[in-house]
Amino acid sequence: MDNFTFYNPVKIVFGKNTIPQLENLMPKTSKVMLLYGGGSIKNNGVYDKVAAALKNHDLIEFGGIEPNPLYETCMKAVAEIKKEKVDFLLAVGGGSVLDATKFIAAAAEYKGDDPWEILLSFGEKVESSMSLGAVLTLPATGSEMNPNSVISRKATSEKLFFGHPSVYPEFSILDPETTYSLPERQVANGIVDAFVHVMEQYMTYPVGASLQDRFAEGIIQTLVEEAPKVRNNPKDYDSRANIMWSATLALNGLIACGVPEDWSTHMIGHELTAFYGIDHAQSLAVVLPALWRNRKDEKNAKLLQFGQRVWSLNGENKDACVDDAIAKTAEFFESVGVKTKLADYGIDKQEAAEKIRDRFKQRGSVFGEHGNISPNVVYNIIMDCQ
Amino acid sequence: MDNFTFYNPVKIVFGKNTIPQLENLMPKTSKVMLLYGGGSIKNNGVYDKVAAALKNHDLIEFGGIEPNPLYETCMKAVAEIKKEKVDFLLAVGGGSVLDATKFIAAAAEYKGDDPWEILLSFGEKVESSMSLGAVLTLPATGSEMNPNSVISRKATSEKLFFGHPSVYPEFSILDPETTYSLPERQVANGIVDAFVHVMEQYMTYPVGASLQDRFAEGIIQTLVEEAPKVRNNPKDYDSRANIMWSATLALNGLIACGVPEDWSTHMIGHELTAFYGIDHAQSLAVVLPALWRNRKDEKNAKLLQFGQRVWSLNGENKDACVDDAIAKTAEFFESVGVKTKLADYGIDKQEAAEKIRDRFKQRGSVFGEHGNISPNVVYNIIMDCQ
Repeated sequence: MDNFTFYNPVKIVFGKNTIPQLENLMPKTSKVMLLYGGGSIKNNGVYDKVAAALKNHDLIEFGGIEPNPLYETCMKAVAEIKKEKVDFLLAVGGGSVLDATKFIAAAAEYKGDDPWEILLSFGEKVESSMSLGAVLTLPATGSEMNPNSVISRKATSEKLFFGHPSVYPEFSILDPETTYSLPERQVANGIVDAFVHVMEQYMTYPVGASLQDRFAEGIIQTLVEEAPKVRNNPKDYDSRANIMWSATLALNGLIACGVPEDWSTHMIGHELTAFYGIDHAQSLAVVLPALWRNRKDEKNAKLLQFGQRVWSLNGENKDACVDDAIAKTAEFFESVGVKTKLADYGIDKQEAAEKIRDRFKQRGSVFGEHGNISPNVVYNIIMDCQ
Repeated sequence: MDNFTFYNPVKIVFGKNTIPQLENLMPKTSKVMLLYGGGSIKNNGVYDKVAAALKNHDLIEFGGIEPNPLYETCMKAVAEIKKEKVDFLLAVGGGSVLDATKFIAAAAEYKGDDPWEILLSFGEKVESSMSLGAVLTLPATGSEMNPNSVISRKATSEKLFFGHPSVYPEFSILDPETTYSLPERQVANGIVDAFVHVMEQYMTYPVGASLQDRFAEGIIQTLVEEAPKVRNNPKDYDSRANIMWSATLALNGLIACGVPEDWSTHMIGHELTAFYGIDHAQSLAVVLPALWRNRKDEKNAKLLQFGQRVWSLNGENKDACVDDAIAKTAEFFESVGVKTKLADYGIDKQEAAEKIRDRFKQRGSVFGEHGNISPNVVYNIIMDCQ
């Protein structure tokens, strides 16, 4: 097991009818900005509950944060915050709204010339950020309990990541009932996103971290068991709750403790989203199986363990077990409703492979737990996508 | 799944040679009290490493904190703290030293007449506490990552619990190599303690909390797998690390999220320790199997799940599966070296049952996830101990 530091001060308030607790969770600030996305919170009752809880707060609103939130949009919020002297940000929505709010929190206090540097430095240039809290309505990204954010820039078709401890939410409210009204596609995407987050921290090579492996496998087993229940009955409270809590714990730092991480599926997927506009989870569902096939030798021991423990495969024929584990994973993505073939999204394989290889060459990017997924390996992985 | 709040701001610094990080983890306070136990840290090199890391701090020492730490000892430390104007407490040792330090931190700032009220009120009367940090040398109680403490009082043979968010350690350093030199008995006790902590939060009735169940089972599976490795090779780093991290996560609040809890094994065990002086883990190893036999109907569904998932039992004959799961648990305790029979400790069953029943009657205590373990049920459980 590798050495690690674990620190996560986010207060999670989880369960039915927890939004009214906002009143006591919010600091007694002078001015709050409520940030949200396309307005679904105005149709599903969440906005009204938040407004009722904050009736004694001085509140302004910033709506219209898009999926794959844009730098350009965030900077409009920053201008508004400075003008209106806002001192607390409340994100209400899914991972995109939370990620945008984190970037806005950091950008509003950024002392450098250009806040884009926050992303170019992966967060290293951040010194402080505004305080923020969250009401999560879409289980997927884990943003509600981590210090990370992913932001896209329209002008350059870029999608970059940053992380900094100053953007941990002070609190996050998770009410599984707010997810009842989500479109099937968003539910499916969230499940795939959480699944792949776990895999980026698990599917590498063994370092004797038995407990972390058990926890990672436990999250996957839960997602695999609960996903069909939610498809059959969207108001199955316990399944909604288990999926929501699984997505949070998939990326709150816990299962990353003391183990190597990969993240190349995400890096490649981000480019597919940046170039072709497909959903984040769709990009992951396409790339992961191809990446595993390409890295079958390096990831052999963990693929075998995964096949036996999660998919209850007989491990006697090791090669068959590994191949079946990869196939079952792709089948699971399809079963929840996320397609796993590039052609399903109308993307030309050869073009995508070349464009993404060239971009990584330009950036000098190399990925993977062994640092050997070069731009040329990325080309092969994309060509091997189904 | 029940509603819950999860909040745990302890920074964990985990791994080989992490004690030197103390220098940067410690706030720049004017005066530090270093608290420890019987002096084993002076023999195993931990004291020297701590002293080296704190060479620029103004430091006083308070040694001699006993296992099952005494109120009387703690109050001596409080007097010293006030006299010397100490403003940060550093606990170096196992759960007893950490628990004592937490009580001392609360008692030093207690505004009421008698700090014993902190324990009588289960912590409700605490308003604030001194800041504290920890270097853990014995994996067992989970005290390094929770806001709880158990203190004994010699004068009255009492052993009581309190909890308060102000006694979360700011940081805890966990270096598995510091556990290499532990006596076998302490290692065994720690494993049993962590095991039973998990069970108090798991072995109740199902509430659809699938993920929490998987995590609880994952901790138990890890303890069961790693325990024999440490017995065979005390310097097996990964096994030491897995046991240490398992003991921490067994009682940091995570697996308690949204599920019912029992804790009656602990409540009964505390009295066995208070009256007869047996080790905490020994008391748990005696009581747990008897309690499960007594509550077999109420805990049936979880006992069955536990038997199938942790002990890989065939669940076709449900009664046999439950009985075997209980037997295998007792066997596991014996296999790590903790005896499970009252007679092994020279305790008269009838006398213990009567004394403990009468004390609970006097206090009006009722325990268990259904609140139905009355003093008379406790009597039956103790009479059913082996």
